[in-house]
Amino acid sequence: MSVRSPLARRFSVAKLPDHWFVACRSRALRGQPLGMTLQGTPLVLFRGADGRPGALEDRCPHRNAPLSAGRVRSGQIECAYHGWRYDAGGACRAVPGLPSPHQARASRAAAYACVELDGYVWVYSTPGVEPRRDPFRYPFLEDAGYTTVHRELQVGSTLFAALENTLDVPHTAFLHGGLFRTRRKENDIEVVVRRYADRCEAEFIGEPRPGGIAGRLLAPRGGVVTHFDRFVLPSIAQVEYRLGSASHLVVTTAMTPAADFVTKLFVAATFRLPVPGLLASAFLGPIAGRIFKQDAWILGLQADNVRRFGGERFASTQLDVLGPQIWRLLRKAERGGASSPCEGVEHEHRVRMRV
Amino acid sequence: MSVRSPLARRFSVAKLPDHWFVACRSRALRGQPLGMTLQGTPLVLFRGADGRPGALEDRCPHRNAPLSAGRVRSGQIECAYHGWRYDAGGACRAVPGLPSPHQARASRAAAYACVELDGYVWVYSTPGVEPRRDPFRYPFLEDAGYTTVHRELQVGSTLFAALENTLDVPHTAFLHGGLFRTRRKENDIEVVVRRYADRCEAEFIGEPRPGGIAGRLLAPRGGVVTHFDRFVLPSIAQVEYRLGSASHLVVTTAMTPAADFVTKLFVAATFRLPVPGLLASAFLGPIAGRIFKQDAWILGLQADNVRRFGGERFASTQLDVLGPQIWRLLRKAERGGASSPCEGVEHEHRVRMRV
Amino acid sequence: MSVRSPLARRFSVAKLPDHWFVACRSRALRGQPLGMTLQGTPLVLFRGADGRPGALEDRCPHRNAPLSAGRVRSGQIECAYHGWRYDAGGACRAVPGLPSPHQARASRAAAYACVELDGYVWVYSTPGVEPRRDPFRYPFLEDAGYTTVHRELQVGSTLFAALENTLDVPHTAFLHGGLFRTRRKENDIEVVVRRYADRCEAEFIGEPRPGGIAGRLLAPRGGVVTHFDRFVLPSIAQVEYRLGSASHLVVTTAMTPAADFVTKLFVAATFRLPVPGLLASAFLGPIAGRIFKQDAWILGLQADNVRRFGGERFASTQLDVLGPQIWRLLRKAERGGASSPCEGVEHEHRVRMRV
Repeated sequence: MSVRSPLARRFSVAKLPDHWFVACRSRALRGQPLGMTLQGTPLVLFRGADGRPGALEDRCPHRNAPLSAGRVRSGQIECAYHGWRYDAGGACRAVPGLPSPHQARASRAAAYACVELDGYVWVYSTPGVEPRRDPFRYPFLEDAGYTTVHRELQVGSTLFAALENTLDVPHTAFLHGGLFRTRRKENDIEVVVRRYADRCEAEFIGEPRPGGIAGRLLAPRGGVVTHFDRFVLPSIAQVEYRLGSASHLVVTTAMTPAADFVTKLFVAATFRLPVPGLLASAFLGPIAGRIFKQDAWILGLQADNVRRFGGERFASTQLDVLGPQIWRLLRKAERGGASSPCEGVEHEHRVRMRV
Repeated sequence: MSVRSPLARRFSVAKLPDHWFVACRSRALRGQPLGMTLQGTPLVLFRGADGRPGALEDRCPHRNAPLSAGRVRSGQIECAYHGWRYDAGGACRAVPGLPSPHQARASRAAAYACVELDGYVWVYSTPGVEPRRDPFRYPFLEDAGYTTVHRELQVGSTLFAALENTLDVPHTAFLHGGLFRTRRKENDIEVVVRRYADRCEAEFIGEPRPGGIAGRLLAPRGGVVTHFDRFVLPSIAQVEYRLGSASHLVVTTAMTPAADFVTKLFVAATFRLPVPGLLASAFLGPIAGRIFKQDAWILGLQADNVRRFGGERFASTQLDVLGPQIWRLLRKAERGGASSPCEGVEHEHRVRMRV
Repeated sequence: MSVRSPLARRFSVAKLPDHWFVACRSRALRGQPLGMTLQGTPLVLFRGADGRPGALEDRCPHRNAPLSAGRVRSGQIECAYHGWRYDAGGACRAVPGLPSPHQARASRAAAYACVELDGYVWVYSTPGVEPRRDPFRYPFLEDAGYTTVHRELQVGSTLFAALENTLDVPHTAFLHGGLFRTRRKENDIEVVVRRYADRCEAEFIGEPRPGGIAGRLLAPRGGVVTHFDRFVLPSIAQVEYRLGSASHLVVTTAMTPAADFVTKLFVAATFRLPVPGLLASAFLGPIAGRIFKQDAWILGLQADNVRRFGGERFASTQLDVLGPQIWRLLRKAERGGASSPCEGVEHEHRVRMRV
């Protein structure tokens, strides 16, 4: 039972090469450089002369000052210390004081592929390579029948813990009791768990309309519920609800592991509801805010506790339908697997859950 | 002389298995859970259905959230994340959402023996075992002729450094000069040092009445002084004074090593004095408070310095009568020795000290 | 490109034995002890009975309390815990309570040679030895034709980074643009770089009068410029300017590596100018202050970045005329080389620089 056992040294931290992560929202990247960290590596983002985003290691190759402390001039990032300049590809374009300008070009900052999509800037987690895949696309952003609300959040936990939390059903009735599930558990439902090469999902069959305030807003007249929770590599958590024919809600969260215990959440809640979108936002916004605060609170406590015990020692039951699957996929991706999506179900099983 | 020498890596930190430590005062543990650390291990205390205290590792076996962030319901501690519940013995009694309740019982939180005595909650330092001994008893608590004042304090030092400080005579004349000893040293006295299997003591022979304000209060008319300083495993420091037939003062401190450099002190000052107890408390309280502040100050500085030098390098003289004995006993207890008290003196020697 | 490569583990931290460093200005050391750290080792400074400074390891040999928390009594430092006293040579002179006073003398605190010169207290970096050389002397302090302004500053960087920054020309036009060089670069000049056994220097040939406000103050009518930047082991950075016959400015900075990433700067700016010394100080002081703030800012960012990347990875060009030479000398001194100054040039080369 000693906490000093080497068995306790496990932390659910995975570092995923060759994957796209959201760096920031498009509107957060303007004329000045923006520093961030991705999986612990400091990066600087800036817009090149054509307005397209670039990402470099946030370290001037010369004397290692952070490039994010510098300025963008003519689409190049200029180091604040000696004024060396780099383009979005990482090539050094100027070294003030060198009599012969072409000498500068020997120097190069590590560059990360960068792309702007759907109002987000995405960055590729391996520097100096051509991306092997495309970023995930938030669904229904272009569909006029849907309203989308974007939020940027941060939690003090591992990527894994944040993903599991976002896709975990049992804690919602408890931690968020009254907000969108009640603590009274009266229905046994069936959950189908499916794993694919690059994702996994849980389908909840027989689930009653969510209780609490949220449920009453989403489906005032009740109806049949379709509910999927999905994880897609490397870091997408998606919760999809259909209630009758009128309500469709997809909450997609692209998570960015900034550091081992810091995860950013870029949430897009997309919905088509029987009530006007603005009205729904006005009601659901505060509820979502409160749910998030509770989740951020417990995730922070969990992470602190794992660290003070020197590691994790998790015990799962059949109710933890997606966590173990997510961890398996993350570990595979860490080793460079899960190269491309495929359609076939690799694994499927069913469990019962009381909700 | 290099501070980088491996010789300097020693820290007076001992971790004692199979011993009782004070967790908190009884009145501090009410309806809600109480988090603490014992020798670096986070524990949660709570009262079971029968009101008796229980102590578990402060980590839910499920997802490692701290149980102390949860609530006590019907004498069980309920995790704040998914609502798993544990009884005072560590058995899992409920997992919300599991269709079959008996599945929950496979999970178990590490439990520490706990007992309530003399207004204190004691916890046993090894989990999952039946205690091999009883907690130390504060003396004279039941004796109507004595008044007892309780105080709870904390210092930023190792258990060893706090024990040695509490039982060290030479620093009192210096650090606390004027409060209960004077800096003028005029008397050579004899100190008899005795070591037993589970304790050691120093008897001071020929000591004059303590000087300063405290001495004048304790024995307004002077008289023969009997003075013992005692250490009892695992962490009891006791100072006993008799002045003439009227004054008897025993200050017993049960120390709890919360972490390597954090020690809690649960002090009971028990006395029978020629002045009314309340009056004595009124005068001695502020003096004791000032003495404690000075000790906490120097202990904190000492600990900080030991850490910035990367270890201790102590040099002792014959004046350090108990420190080396205490350390030897702590080390023996750390290795699992000193199983039970016995009466025989294992070692005795005499030194001279000028006070 | 991984930041986890062992190649990145390099930090420009050198620990130099057998060298003199400024401990403090003379006027900062009065009747009470002064704590400091030198290359990470805590020291306590105090004045002995004759007023001369002494330096001991800041740790009482008895129980390791910091001696700097004590008091100076009759030229001896007295520990705050038990009152043990040490003279400036580290010998224990009193242990209160010991019946036989000569027993105290077995104890000894590590002592560092200490000397007072030019208004500074210097300390030798190896304890318990006779210094093999003399401290560096600030030039012209006695010359009535010169005015000297002293400043004490601190930066959050390695000694090496602070030295290189102080003697680096290219960053001045950029980071301090407008203050004493302009960003417009119109002149190609020649730099002669010379390395000696214990120093190196860069001579700038053909340099125009410095631009900006500072240049106009130093040489209102322009003129031929002589400019030397010098590093002298272990930690002296000197910038010397002559402008015509009227202006001569020598800024000498003795640096003290307090810790790996904390460097103190003891600056003496000595000058003979065509304007009154007071007037020059009044104008140049604020400019120097602003330059220092900019340097401290970038040095702190650089050090933070090096640490968050887990090490340095510097790339140099021909413009980095002194940095590599300084590093080579520091490393040699760290291994105990560079025993005494000699006059012969060991190495000389020339580079071109646009200023």
